[in-house]
Amino acid sequence: MSKIVVPLASGFEEIEAVSIIDVCRRAGIDVIVAGVEGWEVLGANKIEIKCDSLFENIDFESVDMIVLPGGFGGTEVLSKNHLVQSTLKDFKADGKYIGAICAAPIALEKAGVLSQNFTCYPSCEEYIRIDGYDKNKKVVLDGKVITSRGPSTAICFGLEIVKLLEGQEMYETLKGGLLADFC
Amino acid sequence: MSKIVVPLASGFEEIEAVSIIDVCRRAGIDVIVAGVEGWEVLGANKIEIKCDSLFENIDFESVDMIVLPGGFGGTEVLSKNHLVQSTLKDFKADGKYIGAICAAPIALEKAGVLSQNFTCYPSCEEYIRIDGYDKNKKVVLDGKVITSRGPSTAICFGLEIVKLLEGQEMYETLKGGLLADFC
Repeated sequence: MSKIVVPLASGFEEIEAVSIIDVCRRAGIDVIVAGVEGWEVLGANKIEIKCDSLFENIDFESVDMIVLPGGFGGTEVLSKNHLVQSTLKDFKADGKYIGAICAAPIALEKAGVLSQNFTCYPSCEEYIRIDGYDKNKKVVLDGKVITSRGPSTAICFGLEIVKLLEGQEMYETLKGGLLADFC
Repeated sequence: MSKIVVPLASGFEEIEAVSIIDVCRRAGIDVIVAGVEGWEVLGANKIEIKCDSLFENIDFESVDMIVLPGGFGGTEVLSKNHLVQSTLKDFKADGKYIGAICAAPIALEKAGVLSQNFTCYPSCEEYIRIDGYDKNKKVVLDGKVITSRGPSTAICFGLEIVKLLEGQEMYETLKGGLLADFC
């Protein structure tokens, strides 16, 4: 069973976080929702989610992928938090998958782990000093780094993560079940 | 400011609930997330959300609309809970808006408040003794009752609720911000 970690920090975008977690769990992936600042985290739209673990308590040895939801407030925390930043560097060094959506690719660039070709929420590319921004794709995979654009591409992003970790057949089954014909 | 209530019961579908709450709050709508069985509610995919209120404590006098997220477990509770069912009947009698997505139109039919033309998650129509199921639309509005199909139509559903309560201009602004070009 694949294992991924989704770190939540105050101001995370709720549709994005929940779509990633929900879609990946439907695929049978072990998803650890990890609070960066505490067990209960309040999103950008005041939805409070209870985490499965504290980020600082996770043993990343057995984790296959880390995926950052967006939201400007959450991204700011993930960009400044030393443990999150060093974990991203470790994943890159170990050749593990890294994902980010919306504003969160900014936090990847901060850690120096963003690939040349990426996407993000429109205008967030202005904060990123890499010129490979692709505004035409819902999801961009370059090497081991996968990025996406915003709330309405979050289900497609979750599905592409499923394709990477669980294969095409699980991707197709879930895409049908979620009614995600636009992905 | 419009006010809506989103009741959560164990087994609710998380993408659907969070998309409705998130999109409506972005429009400035006062959204009360109301726990039917308690303050913390565990969704179908084990995501736990903390509610703003208990359903039994709400004064519905000032509430403009009630919107039910889907998920089979949650729908079963909403179909059997006497207070939820009587509240739905009151909303219908008072000419207030009622919404439901995925499996939740079953709970509307149980209360006798579903309109002739509706949609729902594919196959759920088999549990509904009204023959106006529309499988071709993401969102169906008939009278004061609005219904939708599943996780991947939940943002579009939220946007249509925004159009009903806050108008076309807010709808267009949010649709752009959410990158929801498929709605």
